[in-house]
Amino acid sequence: MLKNDTLIRALLRQPAPYTPIWLMRQAGRYLPEYNQTRARAGSFLALCKNPDLATEVTLQPLARFALDAAIVFSDILTIPDAMGLGLYFVEGEGPKFERPLRNEWEIRNLRAPDPHQHLRYVLDTVAQSHRALASEVPLIGFSGSPFTLACYMVEGGASTDFPVTRTMLYARPELLHHILDVNSRAVTAYLNAQIEAGARAIMLFDTWGGLLSAAAYREFSLRYLERVVAGLIRRHGANAIPNIVFTKGGGLWLEDIADTGCDAVGLDWTIDIGAARQRVQGRVALQGNLDPAVLFAEPAVIREQAHRILAAFGEGSGHVFNLGHGISQFTAPENVAALVDAVHEHSRSYH
Amino acid sequence: MLKNDTLIRALLRQPAPYTPIWLMRQAGRYLPEYNQTRARAGSFLALCKNPDLATEVTLQPLARFALDAAIVFSDILTIPDAMGLGLYFVEGEGPKFERPLRNEWEIRNLRAPDPHQHLRYVLDTVAQSHRALASEVPLIGFSGSPFTLACYMVEGGASTDFPVTRTMLYARPELLHHILDVNSRAVTAYLNAQIEAGARAIMLFDTWGGLLSAAAYREFSLRYLERVVAGLIRRHGANAIPNIVFTKGGGLWLEDIADTGCDAVGLDWTIDIGAARQRVQGRVALQGNLDPAVLFAEPAVIREQAHRILAAFGEGSGHVFNLGHGISQFTAPENVAALVDAVHEHSRSYH
Repeated sequence: MLKNDTLIRALLRQPAPYTPIWLMRQAGRYLPEYNQTRARAGSFLALCKNPDLATEVTLQPLARFALDAAIVFSDILTIPDAMGLGLYFVEGEGPKFERPLRNEWEIRNLRAPDPHQHLRYVLDTVAQSHRALASEVPLIGFSGSPFTLACYMVEGGASTDFPVTRTMLYARPELLHHILDVNSRAVTAYLNAQIEAGARAIMLFDTWGGLLSAAAYREFSLRYLERVVAGLIRRHGANAIPNIVFTKGGGLWLEDIADTGCDAVGLDWTIDIGAARQRVQGRVALQGNLDPAVLFAEPAVIREQAHRILAAFGEGSGHVFNLGHGISQFTAPENVAALVDAVHEHSRSYH
Repeated sequence: MLKNDTLIRALLRQPAPYTPIWLMRQAGRYLPEYNQTRARAGSFLALCKNPDLATEVTLQPLARFALDAAIVFSDILTIPDAMGLGLYFVEGEGPKFERPLRNEWEIRNLRAPDPHQHLRYVLDTVAQSHRALASEVPLIGFSGSPFTLACYMVEGGASTDFPVTRTMLYARPELLHHILDVNSRAVTAYLNAQIEAGARAIMLFDTWGGLLSAAAYREFSLRYLERVVAGLIRRHGANAIPNIVFTKGGGLWLEDIADTGCDAVGLDWTIDIGAARQRVQGRVALQGNLDPAVLFAEPAVIREQAHRILAAFGEGSGHVFNLGHGISQFTAPENVAALVDAVHEHSRSYH
């Protein structure tokens, strides 16, 4: 039994005493202690692949702030790395692959990795973090979505608009569908393995689905999100395992995302959460959606903006407070404390 | 009298024989003749500032394709350059300013430039292009929106998410409002001067409004778009001068944009144009919205995707075909020809 189960309650739209909060990328570079552990590991990827150190940074934000969840420290691109594409990071340029998918035979040869064999280090981090949390708060497991993984696998790295991937989508749609099919099976198996290792909730990051036309989003991202959600374990032992689907820039397709069968929909900061709640009509919980730039302002502004989002969501359960995107490395930790306190204190009146 | 007034008719939702088409950045690097003229000018900015050569490239795409409009060759950032911020371009990094707004006194000293004095070169290009077009098709004048100009002025250059600007928005909103107030007056005067020099339609590019939360968009971008639209000349001599407002990533706020008083709303490729038409209920015309990546595929795919958009818009006037973003430099010119022909031929059945 979790001591603090507000996250699970909110995701399942069950009554809770207040609105739970956690932050995307909460274990990250804005924390001095994270930077120290990362320096010990040598690099971001070495840190991801070292379960002892990854567990250490998973827990760091919980030691500082009264957050209602931990999220396993990892990367969204572990699956293509396990497929043999060779993930690496260049400072200031984001993720890259040594062997992006450039030829048809490479795509035809793609195989879904066995998570117990090729992603053991993630499962070990999940298991260790779960034990270390000692049922204080739930641990969230995650993966990139099938489409988002494909973007990096085809493009070979980060991009503002992924032109190679979008060209393949129109010029060779059957090849992209093949990649997405393999990715869907890989993501499902990987997330279920995380659940078996101790994850109590699951989040799918569809970081780049918002780049697509409405029709292409349905065909190349949404359809595969649906397939993953349908394959996820929903109950493990005595525990319900809720899931969250987050398409950044997906505000136009909120109803479609809610219809994937997920428990909750993540919102970026561009959509008004009150309008979003109206549109999904209680079918799902909502997670979000403070502009991360608000954390650069003074605590008084942070409180005001947090109150605004709580008021926009309104009364009742079904809201997990979060940022609309990952926390910036330039955020002052004391501003995070101000946000967490503001959400906890002010949200009680809505419950 | 224009020989081909389909663009004006479509923007004013008057009957037309077919759906007009032009392409954002149609005078650009995908055309070998453009690259030759640019090489003669020495740089992109030198080309913008040379009315003879800028007129030459304005006309180049019209010589190749049966486009229904020309757009004056210029940059969205001419106004802050005329304010003294020192616009320059670094290959592969986009626009930069030598003197971004870093101090409060710089912001307080900001003045709206007199377009006849400081932006003479743009007005000369408009006048020369207008004469050279000889009333074949209308010439479109344009500017960046007040908020989009402010993004570059504060940040000092391009960015994926303009963190300095978004921080100012929450931490010092009154300073950002001051910049936006000056920008609104500058943009209005600049666009009206373009109309007096021969522009027959106007487009406002709000490239970065889509970065904002719904509330911040209304307060920091939409409000100033409204102010500019309210100040625009709507009739010049015998000619109605329609205008188009384009907020990239603004699909969630379509109704609000339609209520600015503009004649047409530009759409990026993420929104279904049929759904957009339903939402604006005939209050405005719509411009868009093919994914530019479609132009990397074969002509058969290009035709199919163009037909899809024409069908989604449906019967009647009020649609200007365009891409949802500027054409890529890697586009094959023959694919543009295929698109223009497909739109002209296939759209007749909807009129």
